[in-house]
Amino acid sequence: MYRTHNCGELRLEDAGTEVVMSGWIQTSNNLGHMNFVQLRDRYGITQLNFNKDDDEALLERAAELGREFVVKVEGTVRERSSKNMKIPTGEIEIQVKSMTVLNESKVPPFTIEDESDGGDELRMKYRYLDIRRNPVKESIIFRSQVALASRNYLSSKGFIEVETPFLIKSTPEGARDFVVPSRMNQGQFYALPQSPQTFKQLLMVAGMDRYFQIVKCFRDEDLRADRQPEFTQIDCEMAFVTQEDILNTFEGLTKHVFKETLGMELADFPRMQYDEAMRRFGSDKPDMRFGMEFVELNDVAKGKGFGVFDNAEMVVGICAEGQAEGYSNKDIKKLTEWMQRPQIGAKGLVYVKFLNDGSVKSSVGKFFSDEDLKAWGEKFGAKAGDMLLILSGETDKTRKQLNELRLEMGNRMGLIKEGDFKPLWVVDFPLLEWDEESERFHAMHHPFTSPKKEDEERMLTGDHETMKALRADAYDLVINGAEIGGGSIRIHDRALQARNFKLLGFTDEEAEEQFGFLMGAFEYGAPPHGGIAFGFDRLCAVLMGQTSIRDFIAFPKNNQGRDMMIDAPATIDEAQLDELGLKLNLNLKEE
Amino acid sequence: MYRTHNCGELRLEDAGTEVVMSGWIQTSNNLGHMNFVQLRDRYGITQLNFNKDDDEALLERAAELGREFVVKVEGTVRERSSKNMKIPTGEIEIQVKSMTVLNESKVPPFTIEDESDGGDELRMKYRYLDIRRNPVKESIIFRSQVALASRNYLSSKGFIEVETPFLIKSTPEGARDFVVPSRMNQGQFYALPQSPQTFKQLLMVAGMDRYFQIVKCFRDEDLRADRQPEFTQIDCEMAFVTQEDILNTFEGLTKHVFKETLGMELADFPRMQYDEAMRRFGSDKPDMRFGMEFVELNDVAKGKGFGVFDNAEMVVGICAEGQAEGYSNKDIKKLTEWMQRPQIGAKGLVYVKFLNDGSVKSSVGKFFSDEDLKAWGEKFGAKAGDMLLILSGETDKTRKQLNELRLEMGNRMGLIKEGDFKPLWVVDFPLLEWDEESERFHAMHHPFTSPKKEDEERMLTGDHETMKALRADAYDLVINGAEIGGGSIRIHDRALQARNFKLLGFTDEEAEEQFGFLMGAFEYGAPPHGGIAFGFDRLCAVLMGQTSIRDFIAFPKNNQGRDMMIDAPATIDEAQLDELGLKLNLNLKEE
Repeated sequence: MYRTHNCGELRLEDAGTEVVMSGWIQTSNNLGHMNFVQLRDRYGITQLNFNKDDDEALLERAAELGREFVVKVEGTVRERSSKNMKIPTGEIEIQVKSMTVLNESKVPPFTIEDESDGGDELRMKYRYLDIRRNPVKESIIFRSQVALASRNYLSSKGFIEVETPFLIKSTPEGARDFVVPSRMNQGQFYALPQSPQTFKQLLMVAGMDRYFQIVKCFRDEDLRADRQPEFTQIDCEMAFVTQEDILNTFEGLTKHVFKETLGMELADFPRMQYDEAMRRFGSDKPDMRFGMEFVELNDVAKGKGFGVFDNAEMVVGICAEGQAEGYSNKDIKKLTEWMQRPQIGAKGLVYVKFLNDGSVKSSVGKFFSDEDLKAWGEKFGAKAGDMLLILSGETDKTRKQLNELRLEMGNRMGLIKEGDFKPLWVVDFPLLEWDEESERFHAMHHPFTSPKKEDEERMLTGDHETMKALRADAYDLVINGAEIGGGSIRIHDRALQARNFKLLGFTDEEAEEQFGFLMGAFEYGAPPHGGIAFGFDRLCAVLMGQTSIRDFIAFPKNNQGRDMMIDAPATIDEAQLDELGLKLNLNLKEE
Repeated sequence: MYRTHNCGELRLEDAGTEVVMSGWIQTSNNLGHMNFVQLRDRYGITQLNFNKDDDEALLERAAELGREFVVKVEGTVRERSSKNMKIPTGEIEIQVKSMTVLNESKVPPFTIEDESDGGDELRMKYRYLDIRRNPVKESIIFRSQVALASRNYLSSKGFIEVETPFLIKSTPEGARDFVVPSRMNQGQFYALPQSPQTFKQLLMVAGMDRYFQIVKCFRDEDLRADRQPEFTQIDCEMAFVTQEDILNTFEGLTKHVFKETLGMELADFPRMQYDEAMRRFGSDKPDMRFGMEFVELNDVAKGKGFGVFDNAEMVVGICAEGQAEGYSNKDIKKLTEWMQRPQIGAKGLVYVKFLNDGSVKSSVGKFFSDEDLKAWGEKFGAKAGDMLLILSGETDKTRKQLNELRLEMGNRMGLIKEGDFKPLWVVDFPLLEWDEESERFHAMHHPFTSPKKEDEERMLTGDHETMKALRADAYDLVINGAEIGGGSIRIHDRALQARNFKLLGFTDEEAEEQFGFLMGAFEYGAPPHGGIAFGFDRLCAVLMGQTSIRDFIAFPKNNQGRDMMIDAPATIDEAQLDELGLKLNLNLKEE
């Protein structure tokens, strides 16, 4: 037997108990006549006491234990003379009577401590050591708890977890698929699902009524920071529902998860139309933990001879409270440069400072009188000490840039409190979004999303502005500025689905080849239905107040899509390729 | 709103309630002045009553409803005049006041009834209609319940569900991998996991202590009936445990699942050594629902001048109780032919009938006296009316053949009672198994399985019989003759793992290239560990008393690995291949 107790459970009231324990050597503190060894496992740390008076031979053996050795000890629980009240087991120690070294360890390449000295790549390579560290271990355990709470909640609401297939069919629409060559059908390929979208809709056609799945999805994208080629969704679909039913159900799920995992009761989630979110925050995922809302200045800023504003479609700003005195010209210059980086691309940044002495200072003071600027301030409700930051240009772009500035200022000003959670439903998303590059409309959510009833007729007018204005029964859940998930009411009518494919530039043949099975299914009594998917990795990170998802994934890949630990992907045998009816034809462009 | 109630919940006490319901038209019984329509959803069936006296126009519209139309109705619950006590809603009906057709349906290609008229291929193609049928729907819902019960049990025992990666590295050992070409690393491939084996072991090295996952696995095999290229496991691993700890934990899981899903309390599971199972039943997965155990006859059947027995390594038989009078010579001949089919490959079949009149009749009566044959009978405890069926030949082959005969006779004789469950742990499996084709030893479980402590030293003697006799800490759970799962204590020592790879014919370089990351991990304090994996699809089928797993998989593939519904696999664009650095090189051999 390896243990009667784990390293996290013994307390003062266990004193006198004979125990067997196993774990890893965290540290040892060898005083010569005595050696205090900290034994660690998943559950905690317990102090082992080796003592010259008790057993000199054992004390000598204990001196040879290195960090991360695995040992089993037998001994007696006793009260410690010098207690450590910071850990739950800190009042006791084990008087060791015998010890077996179960396995030795080389010196780890980085320290197994909460704050490690290992760099990212090194910790990825030795992920099995990194997971021994509390922050990673706890993130992975937390993820498991979120999954269990989600499953129990959805099951209690009558949802059935159904596993959908991983070997499916490639569709050129959307992101790139990972493909899997078929050996039994040479020249043909499966694709790994980017989501179970069509299958969950077919489950609704099949009468399953309420479906969910916590499921891996795959996207072969050029990886940006904090994206993974495989990621996990809480994927759901419901039949005979309206948007309202779906929002309420998944608001319930979210509240339940917060309660079960953080012990936190969330108030009802506010709802905001997409257009309003863009107008007030310049983002479809506004961080509601602080204000600093946009104020539009077209009516007061244009027509005063300042060409930049006069020629701009939109003049809009935010008010940074209490920042007027703190921002020197140099600070403003730096902030302007930050806004001008290609990632944001602002042309310039206009400030108006309302100083404590009542004076007004502005980069556009030449063009506007103090009265003009004070009138602007009034629109913001600005007080003495506040500073306006103003951008101008094409409406959509300017709003996006100002969103970045708002988030940056919120952070700088410490407006975001730890442990604060502000969920928001953003609703009434556009049906389509214009893609500059391909010069065509794409589905903003996906091609199965239902337009709003009142917009159905206008779908094929062909006019750009009309297309842009089409609205969908589509919604996102946003928490603290992070998109937790999104969904929509789906089309369940073959003709409407065909019309939508046409709108998206599919020929009838393409639509039939790629999605014929779904449109066919719509002909056999498809019920009205809709659903949602939560990004599970992101949900876990947001719950734990983290900005990166990586520690919530046991074995993540790096930004080149590589698993550093097992060194994958890798070459395969010629024979394997041959069986698949494939040949290498390398042609990767130099970057 | 689409519904206030579903189609399975209204009862007599709801009479008078105004309801809104939605569902599919199951049948309608149009009497002219009245139309009884059965409305179906996932939860049940409710009768709608359209009546000339109530609303003639509505009655006319109801006459136009076809099977599988989707409708929404509003009406009042009332007591039925002609009750159907076979269904829970059979005492009430809905007096319909208004109706909306939500979607029409073409005539389905097969009937949506418990017993459908659709063939396998047709039902696979229209799987979304097949799932509307109760037997399939209930199997899928049952699967969800088994998963939830398993997760809750394991979580309550401190297991953490950890998602391991799907894009891993191909290893030539074992079955064939599905591979996934990498676009970002042209010429390199990921593989889809055949199991999370190495990752779960790394989680033990990482200190996770108790891991589980209900997870999809992939094998690119030539599909036999009832195999799927993607299948699901309940995968588990524990650290600091002995075999006994693992058996007890997963016996607990199995009992819990039976209790939660079937309301059935199972007694403690017996354990049997592999050697004993082979000797008594000729199988490592004996069906314990009936006896008919093997009796070996070498001592009494050899040396009497019957050359077939004299030259056989093994003479062994079973006793079919009460079958002596019922089996004519013609029946015996047919049974012999059944045994001689290539799938079984027996050379012949010897019978001994103990007739009711006390006489003995046997196909080998020429070679053995009645006394001889009666002495055989005594070894079986045979009575008048019983029949012995005896095979002879090489020991392993003969036992396997007799196992087939035993199962066949058990079925024919009706010895297998529905609802009877007989679990069994088979333990002490061989470490290795000889592969005739490649003329080398393979790992019987997998290359990470630990040999029994006492066998470690003999591992590299190189002697064939010694190798065959090596035993492992490996075990299988068998229920009703089906292998539910298997596992083992793993090697956690680098040197022993290296020795095992050598035994299996790996060069040091191959071992390092394929499993270097795991052996490397063993050098950083790997704890003793072991685990098990249950075949989840099979477990569900066995629980429901089914022999096929197909109905427990929402979207199965056919025997050619093809999804008939979405028509996958399929060809992909030239551009896609080009991005992956691949070219087709078709060379599939004609079958």
